[in-house]
Amino acid sequence: MATEKIPYKIYLSEDEMPRTWYNVRADMKNKPAPLLNPGTGEPMGFDDLRPVFCDELIRQELDNDTREIPIPQEIRDFYKMYRPSPLVRAYCLEEKLQTPAKIYYKFEGNNTSGSHKLNSAIAQAYYAKQQGLKGVTTETGAGQWGTALSMACAYLGLDCKVFMVKCSYEQKPFRREVMRTYGASVTPSPSMETQVGQKILAEHPGTTGSLGCAISEAVEVATSNPGYRYVLGSVLNQVLLHQSVIGVEAKTALDKYGVVPDVIIGCAGGGSNLGGLISPFMGEKLRGERDYQIIAVEPKSCPSFTRGKYAYDFCDTGMICPLAKMYTLGSSFIPSPDHAGGLRFHGMSTILSQLYHDGYMEARAVEQTKVFEAAEQFARVEGILPAPESSHAIRVAIDEALKCKETGEEKTILFGLTGTGYFDMVAYEKFHNGEMSNYIPSDEELAESFARLPKVPGQE
Amino acid sequence: MATEKIPYKIYLSEDEMPRTWYNVRADMKNKPAPLLNPGTGEPMGFDDLRPVFCDELIRQELDNDTREIPIPQEIRDFYKMYRPSPLVRAYCLEEKLQTPAKIYYKFEGNNTSGSHKLNSAIAQAYYAKQQGLKGVTTETGAGQWGTALSMACAYLGLDCKVFMVKCSYEQKPFRREVMRTYGASVTPSPSMETQVGQKILAEHPGTTGSLGCAISEAVEVATSNPGYRYVLGSVLNQVLLHQSVIGVEAKTALDKYGVVPDVIIGCAGGGSNLGGLISPFMGEKLRGERDYQIIAVEPKSCPSFTRGKYAYDFCDTGMICPLAKMYTLGSSFIPSPDHAGGLRFHGMSTILSQLYHDGYMEARAVEQTKVFEAAEQFARVEGILPAPESSHAIRVAIDEALKCKETGEEKTILFGLTGTGYFDMVAYEKFHNGEMSNYIPSDEELAESFARLPKVPGQE
Repeated sequence: MATEKIPYKIYLSEDEMPRTWYNVRADMKNKPAPLLNPGTGEPMGFDDLRPVFCDELIRQELDNDTREIPIPQEIRDFYKMYRPSPLVRAYCLEEKLQTPAKIYYKFEGNNTSGSHKLNSAIAQAYYAKQQGLKGVTTETGAGQWGTALSMACAYLGLDCKVFMVKCSYEQKPFRREVMRTYGASVTPSPSMETQVGQKILAEHPGTTGSLGCAISEAVEVATSNPGYRYVLGSVLNQVLLHQSVIGVEAKTALDKYGVVPDVIIGCAGGGSNLGGLISPFMGEKLRGERDYQIIAVEPKSCPSFTRGKYAYDFCDTGMICPLAKMYTLGSSFIPSPDHAGGLRFHGMSTILSQLYHDGYMEARAVEQTKVFEAAEQFARVEGILPAPESSHAIRVAIDEALKCKETGEEKTILFGLTGTGYFDMVAYEKFHNGEMSNYIPSDEELAESFARLPKVPGQE
Repeated sequence: MATEKIPYKIYLSEDEMPRTWYNVRADMKNKPAPLLNPGTGEPMGFDDLRPVFCDELIRQELDNDTREIPIPQEIRDFYKMYRPSPLVRAYCLEEKLQTPAKIYYKFEGNNTSGSHKLNSAIAQAYYAKQQGLKGVTTETGAGQWGTALSMACAYLGLDCKVFMVKCSYEQKPFRREVMRTYGASVTPSPSMETQVGQKILAEHPGTTGSLGCAISEAVEVATSNPGYRYVLGSVLNQVLLHQSVIGVEAKTALDKYGVVPDVIIGCAGGGSNLGGLISPFMGEKLRGERDYQIIAVEPKSCPSFTRGKYAYDFCDTGMICPLAKMYTLGSSFIPSPDHAGGLRFHGMSTILSQLYHDGYMEARAVEQTKVFEAAEQFARVEGILPAPESSHAIRVAIDEALKCKETGEEKTILFGLTGTGYFDMVAYEKFHNGEMSNYIPSDEELAESFARLPKVPGQE
């Protein structure tokens, strides 16, 4: 098969689509650290998590052992609406760069949510429905996750309540309308609908909100309304599990043509797309069957891996969620408003944090304007206007391909193109107008944030 | 093959992609009427059209005889970037409607221009490049065509100058930024850059522009700058020819599974997507090999087929372009500003006009709010947020499927889903807020517009 001409786009047939998610935790010797109860400092078990999350999702969250977890038929049917996603051979980019490298990308943007988020949204909505729940609540910043969840809930006839950070709600009215098209209720956060919202508005009238505040409101509504649960679009083990459909599809498609990547690159905010993309490859690496160079790419303005501490921290700035052990800038860290490229989360998936800590992957931080340069270069030859998030991966893929041009190496590069940038044109406009800067947090700023890390037994 | 389970999405392999465009004019006994010189009333030949259009495109425009026209290899390579487009079996919509009908749609929205427009944009840009031209000029309203042309020009390294109707330029800044990402120069029209723009601004200071005015500016720049030509995104015979790639792919995919559509439905503004979709099917119908019911769908607010006159008219409101014989509401007709669903062109492709006149296809006009109802219903089960234009076809496809539910007929319905609505959320918002009305032009209004039709020898 290896000599066959590789098409521009490799689509699996429906029969070849994954029937199981790949749980990379099964291959890890050092398992990811458990979530801790912020009050007691004790690991949280099934019963502790039930008030907030759906039962089956908690089981998946806590399952460190089962390598392959079946994808229910209903979810597989939904996946067929927008999957398999294409694995694209970037012939045009290769030619433009005049590189001997072979570049592939797995493109997750061909669905209305515009990103990979839908892969986990449908799974989380499905298990909520199975449990007989009425609905789910969540928060959204830029709106991709909220859109994905709205789509999944509309399909299953589930109520969907989204708290959207107020400044996004006002600046991205189109995202809001997409969610409304899917029947979701979208509330700007902070709102008067929750106690925590009322409290924040009383203390900070006129605030434009934050993701942490929106999480707090979503959790309050979920826990105080019977038949509702809270769902989250990244960071959690379960989300990486669902996103493994990206990696399993990519690996199946490459295997069909006998292609083995040397380098695998993904952007990393909370880590769900990168974790999903690398899962089956990382499994082989952890089992010692094959080696891959795996690179996480993050913004220099929010450098969790490259400048963060590996410590227990809150997942939310509101400090109401369980503690997770991760590379973190501190839950009080807020990226500069100048930062337009997404990936704003202060922490990182515990799975990826452990793998990074154990040396199985590396990380690079890139400057914002360099990211948009790569985005534009890519758009012009590959015809896809990429999301700023995804463009972090494009940046490093191009850098690696240019290195190959210097050395003459014919490396095979695989990267994750998580989504499209159609709702991010304000950021592109800033870039075109030369109004985009490259903010980098100072050591002092980070030290201040680190000083507020929670006290946990056994942690300095 | 007919018993094989049909997948949700049928993708052709690259080998199965069309090598030729299908020129339906070859099958027409009554050929479409020629373009006339507005000054002399004489048919326009190759030499008359050269100052405005590229040579090879004029040849295609005038070729009524060659049934299959080869697609150059470079264009086929570009098509591989975003084609084949999926032919989708709408299992979820069928189930939602509880219809015995089998519904298929050809989805052209999986590219950054968001629509089928790219199919002709790359062809027109390619021939301009082949001719050694420096660049092309065009107009754009909503921005899909301008975006498509920008993408094609960026790929080929061709200069691209877009005149964007001023009100769109201001209301749709994101479309403008997408075009800028592809390196196009985008000018709000009317502008001070052209004589015609200066004249209009002097007469109507503060005007927000019109498509007709933007066409005039684009033509002026093309004809007054050496190395430039004007290109157009719909209406022309050449554009229908390029768009036949939609129909040829759709037919090849259906043939693979032994499926024969009973009804073929497409929205019609200038007619390029509908003309492209139906080309090979219409060819069979014209040759008497097979019968299909073919339905053009247009807005009740801009009803060229259903209430227009079949007459020679200007293609532009500025009255500078050649005269075309078509179903027209008169070039002075302007749809109500309340109309949000696209398809605003006053006339219709001469090919489709002739076919409609000869009884080979029928037409339906639908109300705007009914169109958005269909759009929302479709989005919720099929996961694609459709363009308002495309939703006209969805409306009638749903209506036909519901008729089958009443009669028990198992008809096979094929419709064209031309694009996505990501840049049309203002219209969706109006719909969600109950602020959308159903304007229908009065007979008096149309009579006034008809009275201004140009005087042409042999035409009443």
